[in-house]
Amino acid sequence: MHSPPLSPQLLNCLTPEENTGCQHGLYFQDGERRVDYILTYHIKKPSSSRSNRQSSRFTDNAFTRSLRRGTARLGRTPPPQPRGDPEVASQDHSMDYHVDDKRLHREEFEGNLRDMGMELEKDEDTKTPGVGFVKIHAPWHVLCREAEFMKLKMPTKKVYEMKQSTGVGAKINTLVNKVTEPLYPNVEDNRTQNVKHLSYMFSREKQHLFDLSDRDSFFDSKTRASIVSVTVSSRSSMTCGPCNACYVLTFCCSVFQLLYEEWASYSVFYKYQPIGLVRKYFGEKIGLYFAWLGLYTQMLIPASLVGVIVFLYGCATVDDNIPSMEICHPKNNITMCPLCDRACSYWKLKEACGTARASHLFDNPATVFFSIFMALWAAMFMEHWKRRQMRLNYEWDLTGFEEEEVSDHPRAEYELRVMQKSLKKEHKTQKVLIEKEKLTCRDRLPAYMTNVVMMLLMIGVTFAIVFGVILYRISTKTALHMSNNPTTRSNVRLTVKTTAAIINLVVILILDEVYGAVARWLTVLEVPKTDKSFEERLIFKTFILKFVNAFTPIIYIAFFRGRLVGRPGSYLYVFESYRMEECAHGGCLMELCIQLSITMLGKQLIQNNLFEIDQYFSVVLIPLKKLIRYIKSKRRSFQEEEREKKLQRYETDHFLEPFAGLTPEYMEMIIQFGFVTLFVASFPLAPLFALLNNIIEIRLDAKKFVAELRRPVAARAKDIGIWYNLLRAVAKVAVIINAFVISFTSDFIPRLVYQYMYSPDGSMHDFVNHTLSYFNVSNFQDGKEPMDPQHQVEMCRYKDYREPPWSNTPYVISKEFWAVLAARLAFVIVFQNVVMLMSDIVDWLIPDIPKDISLQIHKEKILMVELFMKEEQGKIQFIDSMIPCGGKEKRNNHAPIARSRSIPHTHSHTHANNF
Amino acid sequence: MHSPPLSPQLLNCLTPEENTGCQHGLYFQDGERRVDYILTYHIKKPSSSRSNRQSSRFTDNAFTRSLRRGTARLGRTPPPQPRGDPEVASQDHSMDYHVDDKRLHREEFEGNLRDMGMELEKDEDTKTPGVGFVKIHAPWHVLCREAEFMKLKMPTKKVYEMKQSTGVGAKINTLVNKVTEPLYPNVEDNRTQNVKHLSYMFSREKQHLFDLSDRDSFFDSKTRASIVSVTVSSRSSMTCGPCNACYVLTFCCSVFQLLYEEWASYSVFYKYQPIGLVRKYFGEKIGLYFAWLGLYTQMLIPASLVGVIVFLYGCATVDDNIPSMEICHPKNNITMCPLCDRACSYWKLKEACGTARASHLFDNPATVFFSIFMALWAAMFMEHWKRRQMRLNYEWDLTGFEEEEVSDHPRAEYELRVMQKSLKKEHKTQKVLIEKEKLTCRDRLPAYMTNVVMMLLMIGVTFAIVFGVILYRISTKTALHMSNNPTTRSNVRLTVKTTAAIINLVVILILDEVYGAVARWLTVLEVPKTDKSFEERLIFKTFILKFVNAFTPIIYIAFFRGRLVGRPGSYLYVFESYRMEECAHGGCLMELCIQLSITMLGKQLIQNNLFEIDQYFSVVLIPLKKLIRYIKSKRRSFQEEEREKKLQRYETDHFLEPFAGLTPEYMEMIIQFGFVTLFVASFPLAPLFALLNNIIEIRLDAKKFVAELRRPVAARAKDIGIWYNLLRAVAKVAVIINAFVISFTSDFIPRLVYQYMYSPDGSMHDFVNHTLSYFNVSNFQDGKEPMDPQHQVEMCRYKDYREPPWSNTPYVISKEFWAVLAARLAFVIVFQNVVMLMSDIVDWLIPDIPKDISLQIHKEKILMVELFMKEEQGKIQFIDSMIPCGGKEKRNNHAPIARSRSIPHTHSHTHANNF
Repeated sequence: MHSPPLSPQLLNCLTPEENTGCQHGLYFQDGERRVDYILTYHIKKPSSSRSNRQSSRFTDNAFTRSLRRGTARLGRTPPPQPRGDPEVASQDHSMDYHVDDKRLHREEFEGNLRDMGMELEKDEDTKTPGVGFVKIHAPWHVLCREAEFMKLKMPTKKVYEMKQSTGVGAKINTLVNKVTEPLYPNVEDNRTQNVKHLSYMFSREKQHLFDLSDRDSFFDSKTRASIVSVTVSSRSSMTCGPCNACYVLTFCCSVFQLLYEEWASYSVFYKYQPIGLVRKYFGEKIGLYFAWLGLYTQMLIPASLVGVIVFLYGCATVDDNIPSMEICHPKNNITMCPLCDRACSYWKLKEACGTARASHLFDNPATVFFSIFMALWAAMFMEHWKRRQMRLNYEWDLTGFEEEEVSDHPRAEYELRVMQKSLKKEHKTQKVLIEKEKLTCRDRLPAYMTNVVMMLLMIGVTFAIVFGVILYRISTKTALHMSNNPTTRSNVRLTVKTTAAIINLVVILILDEVYGAVARWLTVLEVPKTDKSFEERLIFKTFILKFVNAFTPIIYIAFFRGRLVGRPGSYLYVFESYRMEECAHGGCLMELCIQLSITMLGKQLIQNNLFEIDQYFSVVLIPLKKLIRYIKSKRRSFQEEEREKKLQRYETDHFLEPFAGLTPEYMEMIIQFGFVTLFVASFPLAPLFALLNNIIEIRLDAKKFVAELRRPVAARAKDIGIWYNLLRAVAKVAVIINAFVISFTSDFIPRLVYQYMYSPDGSMHDFVNHTLSYFNVSNFQDGKEPMDPQHQVEMCRYKDYREPPWSNTPYVISKEFWAVLAARLAFVIVFQNVVMLMSDIVDWLIPDIPKDISLQIHKEKILMVELFMKEEQGKIQFIDSMIPCGGKEKRNNHAPIARSRSIPHTHSHTHANNF
Repeated sequence: MHSPPLSPQLLNCLTPEENTGCQHGLYFQDGERRVDYILTYHIKKPSSSRSNRQSSRFTDNAFTRSLRRGTARLGRTPPPQPRGDPEVASQDHSMDYHVDDKRLHREEFEGNLRDMGMELEKDEDTKTPGVGFVKIHAPWHVLCREAEFMKLKMPTKKVYEMKQSTGVGAKINTLVNKVTEPLYPNVEDNRTQNVKHLSYMFSREKQHLFDLSDRDSFFDSKTRASIVSVTVSSRSSMTCGPCNACYVLTFCCSVFQLLYEEWASYSVFYKYQPIGLVRKYFGEKIGLYFAWLGLYTQMLIPASLVGVIVFLYGCATVDDNIPSMEICHPKNNITMCPLCDRACSYWKLKEACGTARASHLFDNPATVFFSIFMALWAAMFMEHWKRRQMRLNYEWDLTGFEEEEVSDHPRAEYELRVMQKSLKKEHKTQKVLIEKEKLTCRDRLPAYMTNVVMMLLMIGVTFAIVFGVILYRISTKTALHMSNNPTTRSNVRLTVKTTAAIINLVVILILDEVYGAVARWLTVLEVPKTDKSFEERLIFKTFILKFVNAFTPIIYIAFFRGRLVGRPGSYLYVFESYRMEECAHGGCLMELCIQLSITMLGKQLIQNNLFEIDQYFSVVLIPLKKLIRYIKSKRRSFQEEEREKKLQRYETDHFLEPFAGLTPEYMEMIIQFGFVTLFVASFPLAPLFALLNNIIEIRLDAKKFVAELRRPVAARAKDIGIWYNLLRAVAKVAVIINAFVISFTSDFIPRLVYQYMYSPDGSMHDFVNHTLSYFNVSNFQDGKEPMDPQHQVEMCRYKDYREPPWSNTPYVISKEFWAVLAARLAFVIVFQNVVMLMSDIVDWLIPDIPKDISLQIHKEKILMVELFMKEEQGKIQFIDSMIPCGGKEKRNNHAPIARSRSIPHTHSHTHANNF
């Protein structure tokens, strides 16, 4: 077993002969009690002094102890640590005192757990030196008690048949099911859907409702682990208590194997995900992520189809486009003003023929339609997700579950700060405070200030870098123009554009990592009270920074480039020597498109493939990383190699990467969602690229969760939380940005205005001429005129709406400019409001709860009431049978039961009433 | 007691000697069992044939019976009938068969109620002839059972003290409380707030938790009534079963008296409402309405303050306003083009001095600020309401309560339609259908089509009427101009404006009633399935129609008037003879303001005072109405006058108006909210008027509910439902409308553009001249020039941005026009997005759940868990004491309990586990 540790437990699981080995370590030493949860900790000195511990316990008072505990906790890096190696990191702090203190608290903690009924087994003498394991088993009565407190809904014995619709609808349904058959994963879940167990909040009083014949499987491994985890964290402000890591054992059951075959495999990329199974194994929170990702990917299919059609429409109509035809016409002889000072020369408009034709691919009326479509698509996606979430909530029996609002424990860092504060206060006032202090705004002001300043600074850095790239582009372009090599000069534009975009991409990729770290650091500075608020603040900051980072260059190109150039004769200069860059003829849309595709594709390819696709593509990178970890952990004991051959289950799991939360996955997707919606007007192929990426992404993530991460503790969740709000925000911003892209970046509005206001015959002929203003070359500033002696021109043209040199007010902005501007702005208003209205209508038309689900929930309620009524009746009959006479005649007087139409109120006897 | 029946039970309640008389009829004949609910029905023939009933019962089969029942139900007007007189209405249908059938079903229904444990007492022989009463009493065990099914939360014995904050905050709090002391109603509720009972879902299993020492008062009258009401309606698809009316007895307890003194009185207008008390007496739904109204009124205070300040700012700066100063300057000699063809003459701009100065009151930069303020105010209001709602939910123990989604019974009309459909189908297919049919889209298509067509028609009618008023204005103005009386001519503008506004108002008031009826008719046509969907559809339709009705004339004035006039020499004509009207100089804002104030004030004064303020202002109207009803009901028995002196409680209540739902109250308020937010940019005093109106409105409504309506059945509700969505929609629309009012109706943008683009010295001097174009009078069309021979002018001026006659393109729209238009549109975009963003930020900054409430909820949860744990411990100790040996030593081994920090998990013993 010394080969690269790709996924040892996986191999175990798949080869039947090893299956017994895989079972090894799943139970306590007695082979009976199942290991529900694992805690790991360091053992530096195996023979720590027990007497020392005893004495320190008595000298400590509660206060200094908890203060010290806080410090000890701070020694660790914060809990949701991304792929770090906690045990290695904390080793640096290993002072003697420290270690002893840790052991002390761990043992106190273990005592607490035992008090609560947990059964523990320690294993310090493993083949993994330096790491001690605590295996926890929750006995049946503890499981029951905690399940009752957690208000877990469990399936009851009561089974009911889901009504199958009959008639035409059912036939169509069957047909659809048959056609989509191959799309469903081979999981039994989907077969037996017409029978459902009623679920009810588990309580020991109502135990007769539940099928407790098999106590071992009544609570599955996920539930058992989360029960233990809740108990553990209720004893401590850290998720793992005073230990270093905690995780659930990878469980080599049929579920795992099914997941591996039917989910975490590229061969099933075209299939739906077995979400029920994912939830069963990983819990609701991760289940929801994959359900969301699945729905998003599914929704991308129609979007990319329409996008491709729009693109093809552009391709098909490129030869019918009068403006680009006019530009490309060989007789076209318009002399354009030079693109840079001195070095550049006059040029003929027909040189821009290629760009003009390419621009038409993305700049045609179909894109307007497409961006409206995508705005509605985003609204639909939101609505569908709400419905899907509701459906999953129902299927997963979460309908009654309310997420705790404040119940989260304060974080250790927070408590430490509070303690420091009250210590200071005590020192000042010389009396012991009884009231618990809390951090006020004043305490937090410095941190908040740092936050604001740093965020602004970071955004400033992004802007500066974008500005730097602009300067690069300007200077390189001028330099290349001066070059004598004719091929270089002809390829100037393309070269500059592409290199600049690549520089931007690299900067984005690097800053992405930097910003992630900065956001985490800032959030730690803020000392949020609970883990939940820590996570939310972190996400919020990361989101803002990454979003600004990804979209600033794009926004510059879309809205600012080519707008701040001045005019021939009085160009705008940066640093007094760099002339601002212009757009190619045909608008900046083309360049926006290039920038978008490079950023989007580059981000996806590099971030995903380099960082994630290890098994298939980059076989070198990840195994290397793992090897390093492996060697590190083995440094201490080279001689024990042969022992490793028979590792316990919990030991193999220990070598997997810890689960770092879903934040990076969601973040990646939401930035992608931004690319798909924000600038879709200029790049209709974005959904297609996103779709292709996501099809791989789902399976990649699945593989990661199944094979490369420690199995995380199942967390209950009803929704995707803050991510939904961020999605909504992106979708909202998308509407306004698309409105501006269509009206300002593309030539759509100028063309319309020309056609309906200025064109003599209502056609687009002569549009190009109309958009070009005249410039008298004698008006060039001294030293700025082109040096090229070839051309002898009097007038050159430039793209702008300005008065000609022969008017009373030469070079002043013309009436056409204002008319076009007004039309552009009007379009923005109309577009924004129409699209927002349509989104609201979509939102309003699609009910949040699917009809069948709401009917089903209602039906279950009725069935539940019926069940209880029957039970009550049973009691009555029991009492009746105890009192042999008098009861029977009386009952016959009453009308038959269950005559009612909806909630069946049965009659109850006065004498049987238990009050 | 023959004096006007103002509010008989009120008088009873207030005079102590009558108090015993008031108690009369509150109990069954035995004087023990309380009357919880009253059903009334008609008795046409007191001696109906009982044998007949028997035979018909046996010949009926279930199907035809229910069909007939459906028909019988349809005979009645639909349940939520506004102030109609159900018994009078249904009398027209009183065929013999019909009456018999009704009695039959009533008796079957009463049997059902008895089966469910209700105790009934009939009283057909009352002093109110023709009306039979069924008094219902719910005995204790029925109350308990139903309370358990309804998942009512009831206060437990467990009391806990609410933590009083200490320190500076508390001192400030106490101070604030002392200052606001006189604002609180004299209700004990507010005093004992620092102790609270824990609430828990009532269940008979956990009866020991509740304080059941006084069974009579454990469930208060409101709860008892709503329990009976739920039972009654669960037996029938109508709220009152087969009876005509149902209501709860007015209960002459201290609550009622307190409500009368501390709530339904004008003398306490400045106080907070005793919402807790209102809820206690009327239930949550009505409580929420008044809480909402109260918050809205409260929020109007800052809004009207700022509004008044803005108005005063306008007044103060009217003399510093350069444009109006220029207009009023005596040297001003600008000759303006005539305002109508032939009849009107040229006029001097200084004649418009008054209007220009008045316009400044509403058209100054402060209004821009004010409309932003109001948009944020609306967002704040929404957020505050959400918080308040949450707080009330908590205080009223509704936190766990989920509103039933589908459980509403289908309405009788719906069932009848379904039955008709299946009958038809059976007829066709010649076989009995087992499956229950439902109405498909195809069945409903005709109704939907009618709906759409009628709605469009109604909106068309509104437009037509507005157009009619425009024509009236144009023609009258021309006619008055021709008049020879000089005073008439000078007052032309004001006269026409005012009369037109009044006509509009009258039309609005009339159409409001018509549209209410149309909306109801259309909704009945639609046959919605449940009462809830009936109500929602009705509200939606009524809202649209009333909103269009109220705001169409205003929108016309704001955005269309004066824009479609053409120019001198080529005016725009309607019907080829009416020239479209222009705005006065200084923009249309002034006229908009007049229209707004007349509509708003008129609506409020007329609708409220005429229809509602009966006791104080219009003493004539309502008593008259009541007298008519009284006489009607007495027509049948003039001879029994003396009997009436000692009416039973349920009889006096019978003479009160039935409760017609909260829809009209909410609708009135939402239209008012529209006036306050939609055009606030042009009328900053709107919030003040609304505030004054609402202060009266609250007490008016309170009086109506306390004294003039039958006490409605308490309905549980967590929120105000569809009204919240409508409010949000109005607030959203308000942003865009205000943006347009500021940029297009007011002169704000043209002034800014002039100042920064055209003014030679950056001041507003010469602005008026800049906005006026030149017209050469020789260019008038033949026959259109003014007949007035006094003036000999060559050029006249008109308000527009057009080229002068001497340019190359005379009278063509000028560059300034496009520049101003672009600026206007840009302002709209900026304003809309900034305000929306700010609203979103407000929404995001203010948490939906107040912090103290969320902490409180959390605390209660912990206390509840503690309570149960203690209970469990009690059980354990009991078992321990049963097993005298072995138990005790074992427990001592364990660590002390409740060491945990948040949820206290105690240890539980294996041997005490009840599994």
